Amino acid sequence: MLGVCYHPEHWPEARWSEDARRMKTLGLTYVRVGEFAWSRLEPQPGQFDFGWLDRVLETLGSAGLRVVLGTPTASPPKWLVDRTPHMLAVDLEDRPRGFGSRRHYCFSSTSYMRECERIVTVLGGRYGQHAAVAGWQTDNQYGCHDTVRCYCDNCRDAFRSWLQRHHGSLEALNQAWGNVFWSMEYRSWDEVELPHRTVTEANPSHWLDFSRFASDQVVAFNRLQVEVLRRLSPKRFLAHNYLGFSTDFDHFRVAEDLDVASWDSSPLAFTDLFPLPAETKQRYARTGHPDIAAFHHDLYRGVGHGRWWVMGQQPGPVNWAPHNPSPAPGMVRLWTWEALAHGAEVVSYFRWRQIPFAQEQMHAGLNRPDFAPDVGFFEVERTARETTTMQLGAASRAPVALVFDYEAAWVLSIQPQGAEFQYKTQVLEWYTAIRRLGFDVDIVPPGARLDGYVLVLVPTLPIISDAALKAFESCRGTVVFGPRSGSKTAHFQLPQGLPPGPLQRFLDLKVTRVESLAPDLSEQLEWQGQSYEARLWLEHLDAGNAVQARLGGGKPALVNHGRFHYLGCVAETAFLMDWFEALAREANLEPLRLPEGVRLRTRGGITFAFNSDPDPWRAPVPPYARLLLGDGVVPPQGVCAWR
Amino acid sequence: MLGVCYHPEHWPEARWSEDARRMKTLGLTYVRVGEFAWSRLEPQPGQFDFGWLDRVLETLGSAGLRVVLGTPTASPPKWLVDRTPHMLAVDLEDRPRGFGSRRHYCFSSTSYMRECERIVTVLGGRYGQHAAVAGWQTDNQYGCHDTVRCYCDNCRDAFRSWLQRHHGSLEALNQAWGNVFWSMEYRSWDEVELPHRTVTEANPSHWLDFSRFASDQVVAFNRLQVEVLRRLSPKRFLAHNYLGFSTDFDHFRVAEDLDVASWDSSPLAFTDLFPLPAETKQRYARTGHPDIAAFHHDLYRGVGHGRWWVMGQQPGPVNWAPHNPSPAPGMVRLWTWEALAHGAEVVSYFRWRQIPFAQEQMHAGLNRPDFAPDVGFFEVERTARETTTMQLGAASRAPVALVFDYEAAWVLSIQPQGAEFQYKTQVLEWYTAIRRLGFDVDIVPPGARLDGYVLVLVPTLPIISDAALKAFESCRGTVVFGPRSGSKTAHFQLPQGLPPGPLQRFLDLKVTRVESLAPDLSEQLEWQGQSYEARLWLEHLDAGNAVQARLGGGKPALVNHGRFHYLGCVAETAFLMDWFEALAREANLEPLRLPEGVRLRTRGGITFAFNSDPDPWRAPVPPYARLLLGDGVVPPQGVCAWR
Amino acid sequence: MLGVCYHPEHWPEARWSEDARRMKTLGLTYVRVGEFAWSRLEPQPGQFDFGWLDRVLETLGSAGLRVVLGTPTASPPKWLVDRTPHMLAVDLEDRPRGFGSRRHYCFSSTSYMRECERIVTVLGGRYGQHAAVAGWQTDNQYGCHDTVRCYCDNCRDAFRSWLQRHHGSLEALNQAWGNVFWSMEYRSWDEVELPHRTVTEANPSHWLDFSRFASDQVVAFNRLQVEVLRRLSPKRFLAHNYLGFSTDFDHFRVAEDLDVASWDSSPLAFTDLFPLPAETKQRYARTGHPDIAAFHHDLYRGVGHGRWWVMGQQPGPVNWAPHNPSPAPGMVRLWTWEALAHGAEVVSYFRWRQIPFAQEQMHAGLNRPDFAPDVGFFEVERTARETTTMQLGAASRAPVALVFDYEAAWVLSIQPQGAEFQYKTQVLEWYTAIRRLGFDVDIVPPGARLDGYVLVLVPTLPIISDAALKAFESCRGTVVFGPRSGSKTAHFQLPQGLPPGPLQRFLDLKVTRVESLAPDLSEQLEWQGQSYEARLWLEHLDAGNAVQARLGGGKPALVNHGRFHYLGCVAETAFLMDWFEALAREANLEPLRLPEGVRLRTRGGITFAFNSDPDPWRAPVPPYARLLLGDGVVPPQGVCAWR
Repeated sequence: MLGVCYHPEHWPEARWSEDARRMKTLGLTYVRVGEFAWSRLEPQPGQFDFGWLDRVLETLGSAGLRVVLGTPTASPPKWLVDRTPHMLAVDLEDRPRGFGSRRHYCFSSTSYMRECERIVTVLGGRYGQHAAVAGWQTDNQYGCHDTVRCYCDNCRDAFRSWLQRHHGSLEALNQAWGNVFWSMEYRSWDEVELPHRTVTEANPSHWLDFSRFASDQVVAFNRLQVEVLRRLSPKRFLAHNYLGFSTDFDHFRVAEDLDVASWDSSPLAFTDLFPLPAETKQRYARTGHPDIAAFHHDLYRGVGHGRWWVMGQQPGPVNWAPHNPSPAPGMVRLWTWEALAHGAEVVSYFRWRQIPFAQEQMHAGLNRPDFAPDVGFFEVERTARETTTMQLGAASRAPVALVFDYEAAWVLSIQPQGAEFQYKTQVLEWYTAIRRLGFDVDIVPPGARLDGYVLVLVPTLPIISDAALKAFESCRGTVVFGPRSGSKTAHFQLPQGLPPGPLQRFLDLKVTRVESLAPDLSEQLEWQGQSYEARLWLEHLDAGNAVQARLGGGKPALVNHGRFHYLGCVAETAFLMDWFEALAREANLEPLRLPEGVRLRTRGGITFAFNSDPDPWRAPVPPYARLLLGDGVVPPQGVCAWR
Repeated sequence: MLGVCYHPEHWPEARWSEDARRMKTLGLTYVRVGEFAWSRLEPQPGQFDFGWLDRVLETLGSAGLRVVLGTPTASPPKWLVDRTPHMLAVDLEDRPRGFGSRRHYCFSSTSYMRECERIVTVLGGRYGQHAAVAGWQTDNQYGCHDTVRCYCDNCRDAFRSWLQRHHGSLEALNQAWGNVFWSMEYRSWDEVELPHRTVTEANPSHWLDFSRFASDQVVAFNRLQVEVLRRLSPKRFLAHNYLGFSTDFDHFRVAEDLDVASWDSSPLAFTDLFPLPAETKQRYARTGHPDIAAFHHDLYRGVGHGRWWVMGQQPGPVNWAPHNPSPAPGMVRLWTWEALAHGAEVVSYFRWRQIPFAQEQMHAGLNRPDFAPDVGFFEVERTARETTTMQLGAASRAPVALVFDYEAAWVLSIQPQGAEFQYKTQVLEWYTAIRRLGFDVDIVPPGARLDGYVLVLVPTLPIISDAALKAFESCRGTVVFGPRSGSKTAHFQLPQGLPPGPLQRFLDLKVTRVESLAPDLSEQLEWQGQSYEARLWLEHLDAGNAVQARLGGGKPALVNHGRFHYLGCVAETAFLMDWFEALAREANLEPLRLPEGVRLRTRGGITFAFNSDPDPWRAPVPPYARLLLGDGVVPPQGVCAWR
Repeated sequence: MLGVCYHPEHWPEARWSEDARRMKTLGLTYVRVGEFAWSRLEPQPGQFDFGWLDRVLETLGSAGLRVVLGTPTASPPKWLVDRTPHMLAVDLEDRPRGFGSRRHYCFSSTSYMRECERIVTVLGGRYGQHAAVAGWQTDNQYGCHDTVRCYCDNCRDAFRSWLQRHHGSLEALNQAWGNVFWSMEYRSWDEVELPHRTVTEANPSHWLDFSRFASDQVVAFNRLQVEVLRRLSPKRFLAHNYLGFSTDFDHFRVAEDLDVASWDSSPLAFTDLFPLPAETKQRYARTGHPDIAAFHHDLYRGVGHGRWWVMGQQPGPVNWAPHNPSPAPGMVRLWTWEALAHGAEVVSYFRWRQIPFAQEQMHAGLNRPDFAPDVGFFEVERTARETTTMQLGAASRAPVALVFDYEAAWVLSIQPQGAEFQYKTQVLEWYTAIRRLGFDVDIVPPGARLDGYVLVLVPTLPIISDAALKAFESCRGTVVFGPRSGSKTAHFQLPQGLPPGPLQRFLDLKVTRVESLAPDLSEQLEWQGQSYEARLWLEHLDAGNAVQARLGGGKPALVNHGRFHYLGCVAETAFLMDWFEALAREANLEPLRLPEGVRLRTRGGITFAFNSDPDPWRAPVPPYARLLLGDGVVPPQGVCAWR
């Protein structure tokens, strides 16, 4: 199903019913409204104006549209900021952040949380059981603009309490962090500061606990709204719209309190910003990298336990990347089908109409600011028509699982050890390699049950919890670990007995040394008579198990024992593809090598093919299959589907 | 005429008369003194020491030199800073800027303005009618070192008043800025903050009004001195020495209160700092880019309504660019003649003698710090001799006008939308293209009368005022608009009916979408059977008029209707030259294609040729012409002139 | 002799005696303990716990090891920071630096100095005459993490007093700094501020005096500990472990109070961080640039007047460079021998065992955190065995001296004038050129006696003191000056009579102009019929002396008069080698051209050869020589020695 983000308060009321009619005609089902509208809902402290929103809901509802109501807590108005002491966040340089854009609050401000509870209670009370209201979105893009971590006194005090709860005693804390080093031992909880502003790097254990704390504050902030809305708005779903490639808080944990995960998808902006090689950026500047949206679809399907939306789909050029090209013709349709193929319940576009003022005036909408339909409108029109002809089943379990962990992102950013080693790059490279072999992938958190997966990919997982270990152990699939897996204890120490720590239960392996390399250095990686490149990160493996690949000098690089495999380097995509292909075949999976920009995805018995390459691709449609979209040859920026 | 900047307070008094004699002998007419000398004029609060300046004026006057007195307000001494609360500016990061260099004041500090009024009144009273004093320079290089915009409480309060005056009501302000977006609506003027420190970008309308406000503060600051000096120093001209490529305030507006515009010209430093391609920087490292000084000459001729000086001409290596090479032999002469050819009344060198101490000790002068003449001295000697042989008439109106707008620079820096799209680059590229066709160019502000111009170039003009629109309409020439022209309303909103907004009076055109590209992407631009490159910025044009050029995919890129033309992309110089050449010919102008580093310029019937290329160039001297400089072949770094 | 850095407080006491035994067996003599242990020595204010350290000394002493005790003042514990007002340093942006790592103190905090005196007195009293204690290390790596210069009020007040002492009167100060420029003249000592936060660059004289002041504060801070320990711990040597390429304070001056200089050597990290060409970094990524350790060995031999150690030798990958590769096999042995060949008394490894927690958990040790020996252990074992077979004499005076000056580094960083001109680069390039000719080099401060040196290299020395001048004059060797030598007076002014100022006593030379070039520009340098490249910096020389080399345009580039030579540009290594070779031959030295990665060094009659190249090198072992290490062919990463 399709939907759209709509801000009626930006437009004359006279337009609303025509807008609603056109949305319905276009084939949309859902309309998100209300987020960021606090100054219109409560124009003066305690004086509410709900008339306009009443009429909006009435208008949309009458047109047969279903409403997702956003809570307005991501943009408290100026009067509220001025009356709520210490609610502004403080940045890494100890400067309070200012009013004048959005997300200007600290997650540890109890006074702001009271304000949020108040407005959500009022909204929930008024609209919680409204017939047009299908669900809610809490706040907006937690973490956007680097807003998870705040360095104010509220946060410092709350962090001290958090530490007390999690460590119990100062002795335990000093031990866990290794504070004997550099005389960092504390005698009192009040001695603990936030980890910023230190002369050189702070203790990584300190940063890790602060990262966990900050993530927990987001969970608690969101839960407050959830509790109010559960009470006041029964039978409505609760969602949040996450921001992709944003890892400062644990999206899985926030989602435990929600019904639906959703995310805002801008493939071109992400491609412009992601640390990809220049030629890759150039190649996909107008289509987006073929794995960037798909990766997030798979991630948020996991985050939402299967229930997920694209809440804000880019319908044309956006305004916030360094460069903002126009999507190639067909891409809005392709992105929509891609999301649906990956299991999205709803694809909702951001936004109905390009706004002629303020910060986002250069962000395209389905309609132009002169009220005419924009290019994306027509692609949506076609797509909406197409969706009515197709019955989409549930997304079934993929043969391959990829373990994604927010804590891993924190660990690697706290201690890169090699400047270019980034969690998101490592994960995306593994994802790309397996997806180019034609496989569907489920993205799961560590500790999720892995039963039924034939192949489990763990690009890297520095801290391996007991739950994660048990999941690896109890599943029957082939489990493949990347470098740095098991390299840290829960307190960010080296494991006794060296990395990979708890994985030594599966592998007779010690990582005796690691080295990081500048990007212009590489080493040969020899596997099955072929030579590849290892880069950025090399581990010295002391292995009692079978060595499957070696570095140029003969040092083991890849070992396995039964169904457990460990790769001790960052390897080029060509190697990852050949290796995964071999592992897949051993596990009786049937890989299909795809061109660089082509991807497949199945949903409920339907196979979709997507083409971001400049050349058409003949899809391997089986003779007995029924074509549902296209004719079997997928044109550039095209989609094909068959059952 | 020639002049020099002189700081007698840096040198023993015993030198002064010898210096004056040598200046006179060298052929100089004007000497600027006094700027930055506050600590010598008022060594203790309220205790003035004018003896030395009396003697300086006496010495210079007796030698037959004319004096330009600088007000010392760009460098208030420490005692004044310590006694004048809140006069120090505050930077973007909310840190007060410190004493110890120059320009350490806030333009909104009324207490500092009172101090300025006081010292200027005292100076004006004492020297306003002095026989040797020909004119005044107010302050020094307003805006240098990023000093226009200050973020102190004075500025915040003054900004609130400014907004009140310009918007009338908060309702109007909220509407003009579109503050309903992100709940940014204000209920009280006291709620408005300065636009810095926001979590993500502030409202562009907010930034634009703050930019206008900050520019207005400079105008008011300058006007205060003007008013005092007009009263106390009748019949003397008033000037300011502007800094090139500095666009944070409106140079035209400040000049409305002055008689003479002047600027400080350091072509090599500007070439090192300007975002030019590496090979261009390399080629012109020792000559300066051939359009950088010329562009400013034309600009300040416009700013000064025809009366303008070069106040501080680089006479050798300077000290403030990342790299400071020596001008190639002949360049000091070339730069002098170039300025005169563009209409300068006076070219004044900075400075008489290299100073052996403090911040500018590595900045060359006409004389070395060991009192010997430096290389530049001899070039000036030759030039001075040459000028006596030539009667320079007034600069006549050029056939081509280029519209330059400080507000446009603010708009594009507030909202680049494509990271590399800069106002100054766009303008200089258009300027280069038309200058390489041999044409003289007048640079005018939007709204200036355009009568008599055959060709009017508008590289980009996002906000088009009624006055500007009228000027375009009422002139008879060909008017050529670049991308983003008419793309914003006066309040930084998208125009109803889409860009180019008010230009739709001339053109049946809608810009339905824009896209920005990374520098390594480009698109073909097809025009008259030839293919060029469009880069960085592409517009989707919905045109009812004739399409003159198209992008590779066939989309219109250049449209015209009668004498109005609109180009919807950033195009390479080769295209601009071919296109302008065709437009010029259509308008019965006769272009002359010049080599990359050669430029022509006429003044009062005399044509000058300047050569910054490594090869000599045979100038197209007509058979009947009289050679005034050179022999018709312009050597590298050489000048030729004929009538 | 060999040693190790050991932190017993990081390990269970049960391990200590086994550790001590293994150290002894490995062949180590010295063990440094105690640094950073303040929180264990004084866990509560005023409550000391010396039991553990008593037992450590007992254990190490009994095993036959000698102890170097570190004072713990580089890491005061949190309780001390909280009780000692204003002891935290303030950074360039006026932000107090925080607790949570190390070196978080201000050198001007008298309250912190009292705390340091207190703890050192207690330690000195208890262990000053302990049989196992051989010496002391004061603090740790003064200056690391940019900690020399602090911008707090303590520093401002102390700086004012310092100025008063050094200038006597404000008139003298104003004159010395040239404060008449920009009205910077002071009327009172209280008007002087620290030179940061100015709107544009502060007066370079201001920065220079502040740099001297900050350096003096380090000297005074160190001297306080020295005085206590001299009194309480007679007959023990006092040392400090310097940080390489750290020039913010004068290492020579601090060493005047010490007995032994030492430094912490991490050749791979320095190679990764030093501004070397990319291909050089790549080539030496796993061996280190062949001159980086050697340069520091020679420097600290000079700093320590012949007595010096490597206190912290990298034994494997470290953790603090952007990239941290593993040393190539053999390099730990090579580095050890290299240090010994350069005259080190002791090479001590950092650290005994890799620590599994806190900031340095990724820094290798001789032993792995799982208690097994790491790769470096075995190389040390071999090296220790080898050292027992060789009697190392004293390092004799080298034929070549290179003058190194901390003040020169300050001058060039205060006023680069060309963005890429750095002191350390200029010095290392000259050092490389002379070392590739096979010569031993002594590094000496300006003013040191130069008698006996055949060749004296002065890569650049902007300020030439009377003592330095006298030393150049009174020695008999060839003295070679690089660009910018003599270019500044002691107060950072241009010398009367132009540069090279005082060197005009030796050379009939004026530098009439300097120019700096972008890195992609160069000029030909013609010498003896051959052509080389001059880059970055060119001087215009007005020379009455013989011109030995000229720039492409014919301008003099290299002049000499008798034994004094002056080069007025930055020249490529190939030129420096050819030129130095010619000068050496003229002075009857016998150069030996070495391959790019090979170096020689003699100590007490033994010649060592070191090979960082990928190919073996046949050493020129004389027929009569006795091979002490190797067989005359030095393998990659190998060492050869003969007498």
